[in-house]
Amino acid sequence: MKKMRFSLVQKNFTVGGITENANKIISNINEVKNFQPDFILFPELALVGYPPEDLLLKRSFIDKNIEELKRVVNATKGVNSVVILGFVDKEDDIFNSAAVIQNGEMMGVYHKILLPNYGVFDEKRYFAAGTTPLSVDYDGVKVGISICEDIWVPNGPATDEALSGAMILLNISSSPYHFLKGLAREEMLRVRASDSRAAVVYLNSIGGQDELVFDGHSIVVDESGKIIGKGPDFEESILTVDIPISTIVNANLHDPRKRERKGEITVQSVSAKVYKDEENRPKIEVMNSIPLQLEEEIFKALTLGVRDYVRKNGFEKVLIGLSGGMDSSLVAAVAVEALGKENVVGILMPSIYSSQSSVDDAQKLVNNLDIKAYTVSIKNVFDSYLKALNPIFSNTKPNITEENLQARIRGNYLMALSNKFGWIVLTTGNKSEMSVGYATLYGDMAGGFAVIKDLYKTMVYKVARWYNSNKKREIIPENVFIKPPSAELKPGQVDQDSLPPYDILDTILDLYVEKDFSLNEIVELGFDEETVKKTIEMVDKNEYKRRQAPPGVKLTIRAFGRDRRLPITNHYKQ
Amino acid sequence: MKKMRFSLVQKNFTVGGITENANKIISNINEVKNFQPDFILFPELALVGYPPEDLLLKRSFIDKNIEELKRVVNATKGVNSVVILGFVDKEDDIFNSAAVIQNGEMMGVYHKILLPNYGVFDEKRYFAAGTTPLSVDYDGVKVGISICEDIWVPNGPATDEALSGAMILLNISSSPYHFLKGLAREEMLRVRASDSRAAVVYLNSIGGQDELVFDGHSIVVDESGKIIGKGPDFEESILTVDIPISTIVNANLHDPRKRERKGEITVQSVSAKVYKDEENRPKIEVMNSIPLQLEEEIFKALTLGVRDYVRKNGFEKVLIGLSGGMDSSLVAAVAVEALGKENVVGILMPSIYSSQSSVDDAQKLVNNLDIKAYTVSIKNVFDSYLKALNPIFSNTKPNITEENLQARIRGNYLMALSNKFGWIVLTTGNKSEMSVGYATLYGDMAGGFAVIKDLYKTMVYKVARWYNSNKKREIIPENVFIKPPSAELKPGQVDQDSLPPYDILDTILDLYVEKDFSLNEIVELGFDEETVKKTIEMVDKNEYKRRQAPPGVKLTIRAFGRDRRLPITNHYKQ
Repeated sequence: MKKMRFSLVQKNFTVGGITENANKIISNINEVKNFQPDFILFPELALVGYPPEDLLLKRSFIDKNIEELKRVVNATKGVNSVVILGFVDKEDDIFNSAAVIQNGEMMGVYHKILLPNYGVFDEKRYFAAGTTPLSVDYDGVKVGISICEDIWVPNGPATDEALSGAMILLNISSSPYHFLKGLAREEMLRVRASDSRAAVVYLNSIGGQDELVFDGHSIVVDESGKIIGKGPDFEESILTVDIPISTIVNANLHDPRKRERKGEITVQSVSAKVYKDEENRPKIEVMNSIPLQLEEEIFKALTLGVRDYVRKNGFEKVLIGLSGGMDSSLVAAVAVEALGKENVVGILMPSIYSSQSSVDDAQKLVNNLDIKAYTVSIKNVFDSYLKALNPIFSNTKPNITEENLQARIRGNYLMALSNKFGWIVLTTGNKSEMSVGYATLYGDMAGGFAVIKDLYKTMVYKVARWYNSNKKREIIPENVFIKPPSAELKPGQVDQDSLPPYDILDTILDLYVEKDFSLNEIVELGFDEETVKKTIEMVDKNEYKRRQAPPGVKLTIRAFGRDRRLPITNHYKQ
Repeated sequence: MKKMRFSLVQKNFTVGGITENANKIISNINEVKNFQPDFILFPELALVGYPPEDLLLKRSFIDKNIEELKRVVNATKGVNSVVILGFVDKEDDIFNSAAVIQNGEMMGVYHKILLPNYGVFDEKRYFAAGTTPLSVDYDGVKVGISICEDIWVPNGPATDEALSGAMILLNISSSPYHFLKGLAREEMLRVRASDSRAAVVYLNSIGGQDELVFDGHSIVVDESGKIIGKGPDFEESILTVDIPISTIVNANLHDPRKRERKGEITVQSVSAKVYKDEENRPKIEVMNSIPLQLEEEIFKALTLGVRDYVRKNGFEKVLIGLSGGMDSSLVAAVAVEALGKENVVGILMPSIYSSQSSVDDAQKLVNNLDIKAYTVSIKNVFDSYLKALNPIFSNTKPNITEENLQARIRGNYLMALSNKFGWIVLTTGNKSEMSVGYATLYGDMAGGFAVIKDLYKTMVYKVARWYNSNKKREIIPENVFIKPPSAELKPGQVDQDSLPPYDILDTILDLYVEKDFSLNEIVELGFDEETVKKTIEMVDKNEYKRRQAPPGVKLTIRAFGRDRRLPITNHYKQ
């Protein structure tokens, strides 16, 4: 044997859709078998979708997954490739597992050994840990199997498999996206390959699932750490790659590091049959996708996140409140990219404090995106509230109450149209606002999906700038980039009346929210103490608002939500 | 030595309030030392509050806790009792720990060995597990130390301590309440004691923390399994108990079961000094609180949950929308009990569909509770919305949109008063409604704390009935018990137009939501298939609403929230 062929099925599966996932798996096997790959890989938990969360506590769910696995196994009759498929195995307990299937037979099962229980992961809540690495013996070549976390830990199961003689390490993952995660994975996998003197075949799923986006970016790395194939980011694809075997064998003869520890390792082994006619396999063209720049990566993550949340939850159209500001402009652009302009509806809801230029900017955006939009003033409804509440408020002065009320009337308009026409509302708040609570609960926070809630304001501008330049025309009007951000809820209001400048605010937030720097540590970096203190206080005291926010796409290394679980009741002061 | 004396400080600590907690701990030590106890116990993580969640990922938080621990240790100079105190220990990793302190010295530290990572618990996210049980040698008697989960598991660390010779097992806990949990704990601890031929001294904290309530109900059990002291439920208290030693020694001589396995166990041991003058200790009166009936237990859990959420978050007054229905009536009663009538404000917000009897019932309740209340009609505001939206809605028929709009106007009134006067809004939805989504997002779901969100409608009636009879007068008007429940959002509407009868609905929900029974399993119990199917579908598709609901008191074994983590995007169909 000169080369081994691997097909990596980088596809989008749906949590809970066990039967539809099984159908998709079967049809992908039938499609890809024409390339006569030696191995066909499907992502971690592809059969049930990832992460299934507490569905894993339902016995009927586990049983259904076993039943559908059997159907997939049967469907591989006559398929000579070895199929590696993520599912939930059930013995005396349940395991995050990879089935090894060939020609209608279950050859073996690998149980994930390292279960992540940090960040967004809760795998120790659900799964028992596997204990023994697994290699598939294929035509005299050992191929190690592992699942996601198993290869992230140095000296973990993948390393053990290499030490026991595996020349190729397969890893199936469902690894969620954050900024530049794809590149971080590449680096790690290249080191793992060259450390192990083994090729690494790494498959990641793609798709959006509530707050998570899986970015694909599957890669194949040779034993020297060189990338020899790469799947696209945020898109479905099948990546088929040939790996030359003799160079790996040679490399291992020249590098004796693995020999000395070989005896220490216990690895299970299963033998696969070899049917292939190597000479007569169809030729393949290897994909090697170009890395995206950060802004494009973010835009694509948002697009996939919106499309999957909307479609997988059964909606056709979305509704967006357009203020003429940057946040709602970018969200509308993402929505059009994700769903098509015919599925995006805008609504302008001016008040007496809305500037004409804001209304004009919103209208320009509507025209440029060529979407349908309504205009409904909030003035009369606002007046009717003030009148109704007057007996109670008569001795008080206007304050934040009246500002919030306007935002909440808009929230009600959005929800009324949502209820009437079955459209899902996309909210438009960014991470800077979500962090410090510069948003109205049940007002601008009202909706089904908070598209950019994990994108800082400074990055919102950068992504919008990239978007216009990628489209090669001014879709988001230039004036939106230039004018100072404002909520326009009272005369002459701008965001910077209440908040530090966004470049400073966003840096402080990144340090505090994502990196858990303390007040003193941030001040030591040169920031003004009062500003840092005020910012931290705002972040802490607005936990209650975030808890009632709709989900949105995780983009940063630490999004609000399952990534950052802080108590609302909290007397800790920095 | 004839007797050993234990003081169990069943007090309310606050998450994050490390300095205030330390002050409270020091003042409690000074108060209780007059009884000359041999041991003084504080709850699990008393120093930092439980559960601190991701505060544990902040280094400054851990450091502060170590600093305050030192202050507590210093404050024990001259105190002869051995103090057992829950804190976060930091070595090469962090541990959920019990400090053993005496007379200004740290004698030893126990690290919790069994870390719960199910239900509401995420301890494997934060802590490294301890490896070795710990006994304190006190005047020749071995006293085993353990933390919460360590004693819930048969043959766990507490059992190991007993096998290695401990005659008394101390366990410090922060064990959250659910229906009848106190009695379940009692049973478990009595069996653990008699199985181990050791007395068990079990301390639980009390207090509310976001969705959790800790119920106290600390108990001391002798080596035969008999309860010899019990703290109150849901109240602060110090329980001091004397345990006779000779009967335990005798019991162990007569029961050789422990001898045979003694050699197997590795236990660390620290020696405490004995200063006491047993003859001259002040006499104590042992508390043995009477068990509560379920309805009273629930009412007290709600009262404590509301009081602590409101007060610990810095609010004085609460605002409640009063419809004249049962849910808002019970919530108002709980609020008055928790905060005093002067801190509860009601608001009646009638529409054209509100019946006169509902308005009368709400007004009667206001009078009976003697609280302040406002009345503001929603009619004119509703009309102004219909007018504003008419250009868009002109070709549509009235549907759920107009019903939700009314609920949302009420939500806006509540939030406007909240913003204007700084009152926190209590929402009034019950678990039956939360389960099936029979509630309006941003409408009746708008507010800071959802008091009865984990109480099924049928139980709401029972608790209300208990409340009136406990108060020995008709505070909640009798008519509220008699009339059919209705949202009154369109003419003649009653809940049972849209939902199965509540007794059937609640039973199905209990089986599906709390016990994860499948559709078929519920139907096999004799329920109508269509009803079960419809109910399950409603539960599944309303996950998105619950995700935006305010927190509320966990009462059942499985509340919505951190207890039940289901995806919103979910194609799993029973």
